[in-house]
Amino acid sequence: MVKFTEMNAKELEEKKEILLKKYEDFKNMNLKYDMSRGKPCKEQLDLSMKMMEITDYMSSDGVECRNYGGLDGLLEARELFGEILGANADEVLVGGNSALNMIYDTIERAMNFGVLPGEIPWGKLPKVKFLCPSPGYDRHFAICELFGIEMIPIDMNLDGPDIETIEKLVGSDEAIKGIMCVPKYSNPDGITYSDHIVDRLAQMETKAKDFRIIWDNAYVVHDLFGEGDKLKNIFEACKEAGHEDRVFMYISTSKITFPGAGVAAMATSKENLKEIKKKLSIQMIGPDKMNQLRHVRFLKDMEAIEAHMKKHAEIMKPKFSTVLNTLSAELDGKEIAWWNKPNGGYFISLNTLDGCAKEVIKMTADAGVIMTPAGATYPYGNDPRDRNIRIAPSFPSVEELKNAMEVFCTCIQIVSINKLLLK
Amino acid sequence: MVKFTEMNAKELEEKKEILLKKYEDFKNMNLKYDMSRGKPCKEQLDLSMKMMEITDYMSSDGVECRNYGGLDGLLEARELFGEILGANADEVLVGGNSALNMIYDTIERAMNFGVLPGEIPWGKLPKVKFLCPSPGYDRHFAICELFGIEMIPIDMNLDGPDIETIEKLVGSDEAIKGIMCVPKYSNPDGITYSDHIVDRLAQMETKAKDFRIIWDNAYVVHDLFGEGDKLKNIFEACKEAGHEDRVFMYISTSKITFPGAGVAAMATSKENLKEIKKKLSIQMIGPDKMNQLRHVRFLKDMEAIEAHMKKHAEIMKPKFSTVLNTLSAELDGKEIAWWNKPNGGYFISLNTLDGCAKEVIKMTADAGVIMTPAGATYPYGNDPRDRNIRIAPSFPSVEELKNAMEVFCTCIQIVSINKLLLK
Repeated sequence: MVKFTEMNAKELEEKKEILLKKYEDFKNMNLKYDMSRGKPCKEQLDLSMKMMEITDYMSSDGVECRNYGGLDGLLEARELFGEILGANADEVLVGGNSALNMIYDTIERAMNFGVLPGEIPWGKLPKVKFLCPSPGYDRHFAICELFGIEMIPIDMNLDGPDIETIEKLVGSDEAIKGIMCVPKYSNPDGITYSDHIVDRLAQMETKAKDFRIIWDNAYVVHDLFGEGDKLKNIFEACKEAGHEDRVFMYISTSKITFPGAGVAAMATSKENLKEIKKKLSIQMIGPDKMNQLRHVRFLKDMEAIEAHMKKHAEIMKPKFSTVLNTLSAELDGKEIAWWNKPNGGYFISLNTLDGCAKEVIKMTADAGVIMTPAGATYPYGNDPRDRNIRIAPSFPSVEELKNAMEVFCTCIQIVSINKLLLK
Repeated sequence: MVKFTEMNAKELEEKKEILLKKYEDFKNMNLKYDMSRGKPCKEQLDLSMKMMEITDYMSSDGVECRNYGGLDGLLEARELFGEILGANADEVLVGGNSALNMIYDTIERAMNFGVLPGEIPWGKLPKVKFLCPSPGYDRHFAICELFGIEMIPIDMNLDGPDIETIEKLVGSDEAIKGIMCVPKYSNPDGITYSDHIVDRLAQMETKAKDFRIIWDNAYVVHDLFGEGDKLKNIFEACKEAGHEDRVFMYISTSKITFPGAGVAAMATSKENLKEIKKKLSIQMIGPDKMNQLRHVRFLKDMEAIEAHMKKHAEIMKPKFSTVLNTLSAELDGKEIAWWNKPNGGYFISLNTLDGCAKEVIKMTADAGVIMTPAGATYPYGNDPRDRNIRIAPSFPSVEELKNAMEVFCTCIQIVSINKLLLK
């Protein structure tokens, strides 16, 4: 493949003419695909329908799940999620349908009431800052922005966020109160933090005594290829380092069972949990235990969950392969785009030449292919190099994906040529 | 029946001796009843099990309820709850399992971000006050207390809260930002606000431009006796008075279907809803639509809901009657206790002689009958006359209730005699 960067203006113009014709043909197909979010497809939803066959709502330990009570969730649910997250049942809180909502509530409580040890409400401080490994999850950034938390982007390397910079910042700035992490199959890069990074996050000295790691383990069992990545247990690492209260871990079954109708859980130290439950007992009476019991009966244990996730993988793998194969066939060696090949998760992250992402997304949208807005993967929606694009292959069919990715690759080439011609 | 207040010391001492013997007999029965909360009983839970027979999760308007999406809830759920609350579907937000959590979120957002028109966060003001009709719902008071909102108790009359005082206060004090109301079968008095009170709440001039009525319509369809009380639609009254944004209305199905596993909804003006949804879209992706669809298919429409609630009433009525009959048989005419006879709801509220409630609750607890803590029905847990007791008849069986109420009546008499002997 010829590198676009080595073509002269005439060659680029000729290439562009061919591509523009192709683009017009795509436009005339009136495509209508939505690849903007990591949304499971119908076949994945069908995998969990057996869950609905439950008829008895009495828990193993004799709790009537159809009635009030049990602020921290069913014991058997806490045991199961504890196993997934690497925590004891008494370090787990099983909640409603949304881990994102649990993260929102965590930040809300920290702002209004503070966290251990000092419990000074963050909202009373002149400035609160969070480190945001970027590209990252737009919804994390939106929560920070809503509460006026200043976000500091941290570069993502292949083994996780730039830990040197993190250590330097948290060691010197007391206003830095936390870091937002999707540590396994990160959104969107699909990167899993190395043991080394996990250890240093757990061990590092922080100027803020109430520093917190928001550990959104959204893709903890979402392996696709090979053995899958292994993520070190940060909670144990924090305990060993004497920073037991540092980490809040989250998970939901939205991408295991039913998106938006699953069960979310968090795990943290017993001391943190005690503080949280004081507030939670005022916020609500208890979570939906019927849904928790349905989930526990269906998901059973780690072995059964892994078998279940293999079925998800069988549906997802051809889709990821379609995206990766099309990217390879259309863009390999042209030096205009670079992308990761994750072992799991929900996304493929692609970087264009600087200053091209927004224009690419606009062009694909004009041809009926809606992708995640450019910039969404950075704090304040601001990708400083305007180059990162998140590809979400889960929802469309393989056939649709093939079309969509061809449109996408065509747009990348056209926009890149325009960029190169300007030089 | 002889009035205790007219007995002399000797007569009282004799009476007390008999009662103390009776009390010791109860103690020896090792009773263990929990009447502390308005918790439905097993027979009530069984009424809704047919809901679980649903197999198809596609909504009438073609929404796949098993997947992400739909921040404000299913259209057919918004229509149904709109009908119950007296609002249009586009004025309704259908959420998770807890109306209390929706109220918490409302107050949290008001504190952090403000409400229309000014959107000055209440948390930035030197002082925020709420009017709290008392006795009232302890969980409302707990939310105010958590957020540092100063609570001003307002007396409850037979037609609702003391509106003269309310009008005077809200008309002169800009720091008063809202009022907490359970307008139908109020918790614990079982009082339904009269049309006149509803109108004046809707029409009154408030010094605070962003004054809000928290209208927790928890017992909106929970009639027990006769025709049931009729509550005027405050939302319409607010619209007519030009105060469309004044009221937030809430409901959940916790006491219609499954406590803690039901569906909650709120209704308010479209302008308020627009503001709420801006924040909510950051807090969460969407509610559990599978549970919403289950509920809509089962509850169908107002007629079906009324028929369903009649079944609840058949279970509840003998319990309320047992409590009321025992109170009458044991306490009528003695001038030591006064109670209401509600047409619906979950509670019977009783007033003892001043300064007796705490001691009565302690004595019943010592005999194995746990009732709502004295004081819980007042802001800060402080019943200034220490006289109000909330009786929750729903959970125990009729047989258990009979025993429990006899213990209770015995304790009231003993404590009252002690009080009278001190004079």
